[in-house]
Amino acid sequence: MSVHLHRDIERLKKKVLSLGAMVEEAISAAIAALLSRDEKAAKRVIASDREIDQMEVEVEEDCLKILALYQPVASDLRFVIAVLKMNNDLERMGDLAANIAKRAVEIMRQPGVELPAELPTMARNAQAMVKSSLDALVNMDATLARQVCAGDDELDGFRKRMQRRVLDEIRAHPDDAEALMGLSNIFRHLERLGDMATNIAEDVIYLVEGEITRHREN
Amino acid sequence: MSVHLHRDIERLKKKVLSLGAMVEEAISAAIAALLSRDEKAAKRVIASDREIDQMEVEVEEDCLKILALYQPVASDLRFVIAVLKMNNDLERMGDLAANIAKRAVEIMRQPGVELPAELPTMARNAQAMVKSSLDALVNMDATLARQVCAGDDELDGFRKRMQRRVLDEIRAHPDDAEALMGLSNIFRHLERLGDMATNIAEDVIYLVEGEITRHREN
Repeated sequence: MSVHLHRDIERLKKKVLSLGAMVEEAISAAIAALLSRDEKAAKRVIASDREIDQMEVEVEEDCLKILALYQPVASDLRFVIAVLKMNNDLERMGDLAANIAKRAVEIMRQPGVELPAELPTMARNAQAMVKSSLDALVNMDATLARQVCAGDDELDGFRKRMQRRVLDEIRAHPDDAEALMGLSNIFRHLERLGDMATNIAEDVIYLVEGEITRHREN
Repeated sequence: MSVHLHRDIERLKKKVLSLGAMVEEAISAAIAALLSRDEKAAKRVIASDREIDQMEVEVEEDCLKILALYQPVASDLRFVIAVLKMNNDLERMGDLAANIAKRAVEIMRQPGVELPAELPTMARNAQAMVKSSLDALVNMDATLARQVCAGDDELDGFRKRMQRRVLDEIRAHPDDAEALMGLSNIFRHLERLGDMATNIAEDVIYLVEGEITRHREN
């Protein structure tokens, strides 16, 4: 039975990683669409969220099947539970990518609104955190996972600076308030993506070291 | 062993319900603090989020202990998995309550900003959804859970109307943009609370009927 369990766990790992790759692709495509003001590309990202949602349901069903069929213990149990939680986070990340694409469509319809030069860097940081959190999972790498957690502060600082700038713009150009609030939401979504990557990284640490690290004082 | 399993499951149920009660109390206190412009009360809500976080870690540890110790199957397994997911949602709801309280502090420092007369109703709707989702869990009531899911559209509509009004206010009074964006965030948090209550209600339906209802077309 253990051979079957490990075969099914390997399949589960592959599936959650392809879900992760879909989410990474959605984030990257949403930002690219915003930067190139490509409405069609943004709409493709919005539409692709359905596939991410379907994949999430599949992963959850697979986790439940494994739990019911093999009643795994110790590290196998921890792995399945961590995947269940990550799956949840990945689905929410897909929603955030779709939200970025929705705000992008609103912004590109208001050509007066300029995108801050720092936006691509902030987006790259958020994407890198997502990618590293998934790499940490594949390689069961708690060190990399801790680096992801550490990167979160930088992203939060970025967002605060961008938020200040958006406020100044709104005061100077109140007629652009709607598109500027959309831009502010995009910064918030990027920050949330960093938070979710941090959640996944914490799950990896838990998986490797068997302890719950979140809500710990730094 | 089954007697012990059911005793531990009953304990888990009580614990997740008291976590739910803490979250309900935090939401209600955050809104009350905003409406009465009571900064001290808002800060108490922000501080109390630590207790919610600690309780979440406890509930998760209890779930893992039950899974490892009894290797439950069928409805017991479904219950523990549903609690694991709800626990996650409840913790995020606690974060939203704390965020409402933080925005409330910013808003009350800017006395020029008026709160829309509809805010208490919208807050009551969101709280009622949270309460009903937890009641649905205690009573394993899929009908009540479906009502929670149905209430979500009304809350979304509310938020859209409030969002429009905030935008008009920003255009008319750009100097109040910061506090008004805080207000807009509070509406968003209330809408998110409704979304999370819907998540819990979907978990209850899954628990009662054994099927995954989310992402289903209406």
